[in-house]
Amino acid sequence: MLTIDKIYDASNVLKEVVRNTDMILASGLSDRCDNLYLKTENLQVTGSFKVRGAYYKISRLSQEEKNCGVIACSAGNHAQGVALAATRCGIKSVICLPEGAPISKVEATKRYGAEVCMVKGVYDDAYNKAIELRDEKGYTFIHPFDDPDVIAGQGTIGLEIIEQLPDVDAVVVPIGGGGLIAGVAYLIKHLRPQCKIYGVQAAGAPSMVNSVHDNKIETLDSVNTIADGIKVKTPGDLTFELCKKYVDEIVTVSDDEVAAAILTLMERQKIVSEGAGAVPVAAVMFDKIPDIKNKKVCCIVSGGNIDVTILSRVIERGLKMNGRTADITIALSDKPGQLAAVSAIVAEAGANVVSVSYASTDLDMNITDCYLRISVETRDFEHIEQIKNALKDAGFEVA
Amino acid sequence: MLTIDKIYDASNVLKEVVRNTDMILASGLSDRCDNLYLKTENLQVTGSFKVRGAYYKISRLSQEEKNCGVIACSAGNHAQGVALAATRCGIKSVICLPEGAPISKVEATKRYGAEVCMVKGVYDDAYNKAIELRDEKGYTFIHPFDDPDVIAGQGTIGLEIIEQLPDVDAVVVPIGGGGLIAGVAYLIKHLRPQCKIYGVQAAGAPSMVNSVHDNKIETLDSVNTIADGIKVKTPGDLTFELCKKYVDEIVTVSDDEVAAAILTLMERQKIVSEGAGAVPVAAVMFDKIPDIKNKKVCCIVSGGNIDVTILSRVIERGLKMNGRTADITIALSDKPGQLAAVSAIVAEAGANVVSVSYASTDLDMNITDCYLRISVETRDFEHIEQIKNALKDAGFEVA
Repeated sequence: MLTIDKIYDASNVLKEVVRNTDMILASGLSDRCDNLYLKTENLQVTGSFKVRGAYYKISRLSQEEKNCGVIACSAGNHAQGVALAATRCGIKSVICLPEGAPISKVEATKRYGAEVCMVKGVYDDAYNKAIELRDEKGYTFIHPFDDPDVIAGQGTIGLEIIEQLPDVDAVVVPIGGGGLIAGVAYLIKHLRPQCKIYGVQAAGAPSMVNSVHDNKIETLDSVNTIADGIKVKTPGDLTFELCKKYVDEIVTVSDDEVAAAILTLMERQKIVSEGAGAVPVAAVMFDKIPDIKNKKVCCIVSGGNIDVTILSRVIERGLKMNGRTADITIALSDKPGQLAAVSAIVAEAGANVVSVSYASTDLDMNITDCYLRISVETRDFEHIEQIKNALKDAGFEVA
Repeated sequence: MLTIDKIYDASNVLKEVVRNTDMILASGLSDRCDNLYLKTENLQVTGSFKVRGAYYKISRLSQEEKNCGVIACSAGNHAQGVALAATRCGIKSVICLPEGAPISKVEATKRYGAEVCMVKGVYDDAYNKAIELRDEKGYTFIHPFDDPDVIAGQGTIGLEIIEQLPDVDAVVVPIGGGGLIAGVAYLIKHLRPQCKIYGVQAAGAPSMVNSVHDNKIETLDSVNTIADGIKVKTPGDLTFELCKKYVDEIVTVSDDEVAAAILTLMERQKIVSEGAGAVPVAAVMFDKIPDIKNKKVCCIVSGGNIDVTILSRVIERGLKMNGRTADITIALSDKPGQLAAVSAIVAEAGANVVSVSYASTDLDMNITDCYLRISVETRDFEHIEQIKNALKDAGFEVA
């Protein structure tokens, strides 16, 4: 059962293993909120808060259970959390992963000391394999969220927030299965009931928001979001009850909003967050959270385990979304000096050309004509228009 | 004059303005050093340590000097540091920037409240303009490093390191003009003389290492490195003397090593560092620092202001350098099913295909033949060889 005492106990148990992560004031992320703070669980060991719940759960197993070892199913942060927690407790861990899991996550899970079991198929197949192995070998299954000990471990973040920011007015928390927000909301609503708790889900995976709205647990047919850490089809039984009772409101954000938040956190705050970690900041940036003007708001940046190859794409998309880069296509007659003329106009307008390519394959073009496609670094959307207009004024045809 | 008392005074003055940045244990960044700590000045306000020196310097100006305002010349962190420091002191600041400066840095400098003066030409032209404006308008010129007050401000990092890690054995510090290391080395050698101080420069900008080696200040003809924050042609007079006296050794790192360090800090520690900020970690990762086995080593990650467009390129380069991605070119006869066959082999080898392109333009090829170029995500260099061998075994010609 979840109690305040259990969260205090978890906090003591976790002291030697997890970091009390920094609370950073992030000015200028939102016009509507001057006092925005980030609880940087992306800087937690294993790169996510998940190690808190996993370690507390494992620490409370009986000696017999510890001797048998633990098993979990995850392609992400829970895998790394369980692996490190088990290693630190000196016990064996097995993690079942679906075969499509990113190489970097598989390697990280091994590095933290787990035995990795790759399972053909998708998450559900890996889950079934984990249950099968549990029954066969006597491992204890560590649920990623629907377990009072796991929830108590995550709730320790709430304690730290209240210590670091005693007059906090609102806490914004990502929701996947609901373990993090269940623990944090339970703790904060007991110690500081006037503090609002907002949950954020990805628009492509709104399982908790739908379930709470309809007042019964619902399972989504499909989920689709870059915030893979909160891509969960069904809320937990316990987390659903706690969310209903202690969470003030749940909002959703789009993938584009998440990408913009990831980019902003990198550029302004110099921290790497994964999609799930960035959803609270996305919700604040894009005005999804009510009544935060002049309030002290804390966003939990829950994790930073984003694949760097995906990060590259997020950067590119985020830059385009913010008008910071643009692709401009210009029709040229194929004669000397055209590129020089275009370059001069773009430079004069204060933009940097990042790449240039020619194309001359369209059947409806003169064979001597071609398109010039330039990628430019810009200040904002207004700047892009200004460049296009300067090119048009010089007689170029801009697509 | 620089004194220990002045550094303590700076520490008091700075309390309300700068963050006492977190010291993070970074396990696994180097096989040779288990106790590697990061002093995360990239998470400092303005994204760099430079605000410390700038604020302390400005706080000590006379009321008359404050009334006139300050001027500085920088395309980077010093600009933002001076801008914020002046704004917080309630005085005017003008920053001269060379016209090629990245848009993001210009915008950030304006955001912190400075008046920006764009100067045609390179850094030296902007510097001359700043001196001209100083003489004309009576501004106080804020030197980026060769000033005892600025050095005292940077030295406060040394105080924090000793508070956070009292038994530190070695501190590794980036060197550009030398202001940061001068302050930190002076402080630490007075309070904990047994602690080693190592400086790191970019191999393409070794002004301090050359000057110390030849025992006289030397100016480089040209400097070239992605670590633009430490791209300095001439050390300062004062910083040169302090480095000679208090720094144990200066080493250099290549741009590829810096890129790998930036990538590793993102992937493992979830923090964004600029090139200059990553050079100490690069030096540790690539075994440039002597005798650190089993020692407590602190790397100062001095800043995080890297342009995200450059970051994209650094990620791609770093992934290739670590064998985490590879481009493989395969000669194909142009018949159906070839891509399917290649894909199956690559998938079987456990690699993810990221992109595919065809080329059929080589004059020495049969007109019905073409090349298939695939980009794959891999574990390491051994994995790449394994994939190539699997393709060869299946009868494909791999370039």
